[in-house]
Amino acid sequence: MRQDQSNTQAQKPQPVELNEPDPSRAVALMSALELRNSEESCSSEDLSRQDLSDLLWAANGVNRPDKGKRTAASALNAQEIDIYVLMEKGAYLYDAFKQALTPVASGDHRSLAAATNAPVVLVMVADVSRFPMGGRDMKMQWAGIDCGLVSQNISLLCAAAGLATRPRTSFSGKDKLVKVLNLNGSKHILLNHPVGYAE
Amino acid sequence: MRQDQSNTQAQKPQPVELNEPDPSRAVALMSALELRNSEESCSSEDLSRQDLSDLLWAANGVNRPDKGKRTAASALNAQEIDIYVLMEKGAYLYDAFKQALTPVASGDHRSLAAATNAPVVLVMVADVSRFPMGGRDMKMQWAGIDCGLVSQNISLLCAAAGLATRPRTSFSGKDKLVKVLNLNGSKHILLNHPVGYAE
Repeated sequence: MRQDQSNTQAQKPQPVELNEPDPSRAVALMSALELRNSEESCSSEDLSRQDLSDLLWAANGVNRPDKGKRTAASALNAQEIDIYVLMEKGAYLYDAFKQALTPVASGDHRSLAAATNAPVVLVMVADVSRFPMGGRDMKMQWAGIDCGLVSQNISLLCAAAGLATRPRTSFSGKDKLVKVLNLNGSKHILLNHPVGYAE
Repeated sequence: MRQDQSNTQAQKPQPVELNEPDPSRAVALMSALELRNSEESCSSEDLSRQDLSDLLWAANGVNRPDKGKRTAASALNAQEIDIYVLMEKGAYLYDAFKQALTPVASGDHRSLAAATNAPVVLVMVADVSRFPMGGRDMKMQWAGIDCGLVSQNISLLCAAAGLATRPRTSFSGKDKLVKVLNLNGSKHILLNHPVGYAE
């Protein structure tokens, strides 16, 4: 038992520093909109560091550092959508302000979101406790819309970067994922996006 | 009375044919993401036909005519998000398959969405009866996310086209707007986007 714990500890993934977003990625918005689709399959090849970095920055990164504001709006600027990143090595939380991945759990938990060979599964979680007001239904509606804003950024960046993805509200093991990601009751798992290079 | 009715009839707005989307609009996706913000104010100048056409196509247009699929995904491909367009002349429904505006009501109803001088207010309505399955909560969650997908397309096109907008879940007169747009009980008004040229 103690051996296992110490192994787990040893395997705990390290924080990942992401690159700055690459402003030279030249695909036009109109082309990305034209290419936007929901793709079931993709290659299992790992994403390049730059593509992963651009993907997360596009999704919900900080685009106005002086104001702490993001590529996606949020109701009451609550910034309640967190992105968890499931990869073979572990589960991470995207830290938009550091443009980095913070380890959350070791091990491969992608299958708790989707049966996929995608190297990356992004999981969108809304922490509705960040809304300073509103009843349950209103908060869940705000969270749903805000989650969609982030999701479309993901789909468009994928379209522009030769990546395949699709938004999925179904999860293979949501209850287990709640435990792996150590989510309290105000944090709602809403959506996942498997992401890999288009085949 | 009869006179009034006949006047109203006479003023009923005509259908509007929109232009094809302009593929030469060259702003890169990464630039649009960098510029994306929520803007409170804008000019009252009318949008050009091309900008209005691109805005609606980007929002939720048909990007794969052979498959009847759209720039924004939808749960179960229900395509349940309709966009109503409120302008000085009247209220219209965006017909993505004809790339045209179908008149719904005469008169200026923008103030039922927002106190704004924006020449255009886009109103997103989810018709949850188009989902072939799901309970009420699930349908509303799908609709919220799908509405967010469309909303982000609007925000990004605006960022790329020098237009100011912001997503708003609050409405000045939602009950009246339900009547003006003649929405039945399965059609839920979720969001509005005032849109005008940035000042």
